[in-house]
Amino acid sequence: MAAKQETVVSNTSGKPPASKDFVINLDVGDPTMYESFWKGMGDQGAITILSSQTISYFSDVTNFCWFLEPEFAREIRRLHKLVGNAVTEDQHLIVGTGSSQLLQAAVYALSPSDTPDQMNVVSVVPYYSSYAPLMDYLRSGLFRWAGDACTFKGDAYIELVCSPSNPDGFLRQAFLKSEGGKTIHDLAYYWPQYTPITSPADHDISIFTISKSIGHAGSRLGWALVKDAAVARKMTKFIELSTIGVSKVSQIRATKILKVVSDSYEHPIPGNPDKLFDFGRRLLVDRWKKLREAVKASGIFSLPEFPSETCKFTGEKAETLPAFAWLKCEKEGIEDCASFLRTHKILTRGGSYFGASPNYTRVSMIDRDETFDLFTERLSSLH
Amino acid sequence: MAAKQETVVSNTSGKPPASKDFVINLDVGDPTMYESFWKGMGDQGAITILSSQTISYFSDVTNFCWFLEPEFAREIRRLHKLVGNAVTEDQHLIVGTGSSQLLQAAVYALSPSDTPDQMNVVSVVPYYSSYAPLMDYLRSGLFRWAGDACTFKGDAYIELVCSPSNPDGFLRQAFLKSEGGKTIHDLAYYWPQYTPITSPADHDISIFTISKSIGHAGSRLGWALVKDAAVARKMTKFIELSTIGVSKVSQIRATKILKVVSDSYEHPIPGNPDKLFDFGRRLLVDRWKKLREAVKASGIFSLPEFPSETCKFTGEKAETLPAFAWLKCEKEGIEDCASFLRTHKILTRGGSYFGASPNYTRVSMIDRDETFDLFTERLSSLH
Repeated sequence: MAAKQETVVSNTSGKPPASKDFVINLDVGDPTMYESFWKGMGDQGAITILSSQTISYFSDVTNFCWFLEPEFAREIRRLHKLVGNAVTEDQHLIVGTGSSQLLQAAVYALSPSDTPDQMNVVSVVPYYSSYAPLMDYLRSGLFRWAGDACTFKGDAYIELVCSPSNPDGFLRQAFLKSEGGKTIHDLAYYWPQYTPITSPADHDISIFTISKSIGHAGSRLGWALVKDAAVARKMTKFIELSTIGVSKVSQIRATKILKVVSDSYEHPIPGNPDKLFDFGRRLLVDRWKKLREAVKASGIFSLPEFPSETCKFTGEKAETLPAFAWLKCEKEGIEDCASFLRTHKILTRGGSYFGASPNYTRVSMIDRDETFDLFTERLSSLH
Repeated sequence: MAAKQETVVSNTSGKPPASKDFVINLDVGDPTMYESFWKGMGDQGAITILSSQTISYFSDVTNFCWFLEPEFAREIRRLHKLVGNAVTEDQHLIVGTGSSQLLQAAVYALSPSDTPDQMNVVSVVPYYSSYAPLMDYLRSGLFRWAGDACTFKGDAYIELVCSPSNPDGFLRQAFLKSEGGKTIHDLAYYWPQYTPITSPADHDISIFTISKSIGHAGSRLGWALVKDAAVARKMTKFIELSTIGVSKVSQIRATKILKVVSDSYEHPIPGNPDKLFDFGRRLLVDRWKKLREAVKASGIFSLPEFPSETCKFTGEKAETLPAFAWLKCEKEGIEDCASFLRTHKILTRGGSYFGASPNYTRVSMIDRDETFDLFTERLSSLH
């Protein structure tokens, strides 16, 4: 990482503060843009945890997902109901150590253990760069990464549907339609700051994460809504084996924060008008405007264009404002956009990681203000 | 699980309170015996976490283990120095989501990825019941469970050395001695409440856990001390893929609790004389005495006998007081000790899970007082 030469390090992430000549790291989608929102909330969302709390492994032995804190589950269901982005009735709720663990749990649960063949895991290009390594790092005999869903032939598959898509921001539906096929919906970004909420998701398996919904990546918490009880049990078994459950400390702390978010909409406090999704949208409107201006000033890049739709959460017409910019370099002679930006000390994630052309690169839109501002400033000067 | 018929559920674990006719569940090693210690500590160890904290994924980008909170690392090294149970100089420190994740990370790091053959993972019988499923649940092409180390032939192996041993409590050393072989030391129970500390561990890889050292299983935190930098980096990569790091909320909370434990020995407060390891030892002395009395009263069981040694931490002669009792049923006609106990509503983990005879069963010694007392009472009445 690029921080070796700098000695001053931020308290909250160990990241060096941005400075004019510094390497701008927008490779990872670190949601630090939410820090200023939570700082503005002061004591709201603060929690005191006693040393006698969260000692047992168990959260609720009456639940099949015995490591799920009941209050956390209640606040998750409440938030989905408020936002209208997912149906939670008749869905089993499972907590995970971030959405990566839940994704592995879901693939494990959907891969039969009584056949010698591995299940093929596919996704439409450009797909999230972590899918391939996540499926292959242990060389599992149960499943394997099989690449682009568009070129896949066969019936035995699991299609990962990331919607809105990481990296390009478009809403997606399953591409493959075989009766024998399965789908897992990765809905990390299906929140109203990033996209108009058009209907509540109601899939076989939907996966969400605290990191991108409310910005608390350091909590390592995600959750899955799962229709089939047997699949939900097998996913729970995976998490039991992998990490013997999920941090209860993270869960009770996130419960408090989720409560603050929902309360701010359901019981607004006059003196404290700020609301998380409004904050996120306002910031992203501003950032996407600045980014499009920088791209225009530079003249050598392009960005996707998105339709506007009515958001059922806000009731207003809303643009799509993805958490990542899928930036294309249009300049002749530059084949590799990420390498080109790297020579200008801007770190992004190149298109080939997403199964796409290296003309593209993915840029995080959710870092701190100072980092984002330095980025657009530097980008606009590239010709 | 056995709690369906009971509606009153404990706040901290979702477990039903123990009652006379109730199923006594001592299958899992849930360290709830530590609850009364931490309750007695009142506000000590309490921590307030603001909503603006722990947002970023990163804890320290200047460290190869970028998700390790620096203060947590400092308190871990401090505690080892205080207790004298591990050398931390010239060792790389890695945090994990419990010791299970670190064990998988270590096996992953020691298994070559450039050969078609799987690495054989072995351990001496009786071995910890989770080792086999942990190695095999994903049918990895990199490693496989190969059972008892005593019967293993070959050079390509990783030996898991659990010392003191779960389930039987004895100190262990590596059994296999091949030059090509590797070892991973699982030192979850190498703490002075369970065993005399005879020398600081100084192995290639040593794994510890918050769950059994200070009782906070719900935090899902463990750590590894690793000599070789390349192995440490590969273990870090595993945790990055598996869960994108480890809960920062758990880490900053555990930091506070570790500080209280070390402070109580290094800067004792006159009005608050209680110290964690002393508490644990006192309770286990009492419980092992009660258990041996119950076994004697019953007449149909036996227990291992342990040598006493001088503990370098306390400077006193100390018995071995394992966190589990490795109980053997000696009664003729009873082949399966766990099944026999189950008919008397005592749930334990049968010997066959540990690669051993079903004459044996493992009983948790670290549950709550009321559960333990009901257990010894019921055990002493069996003939």
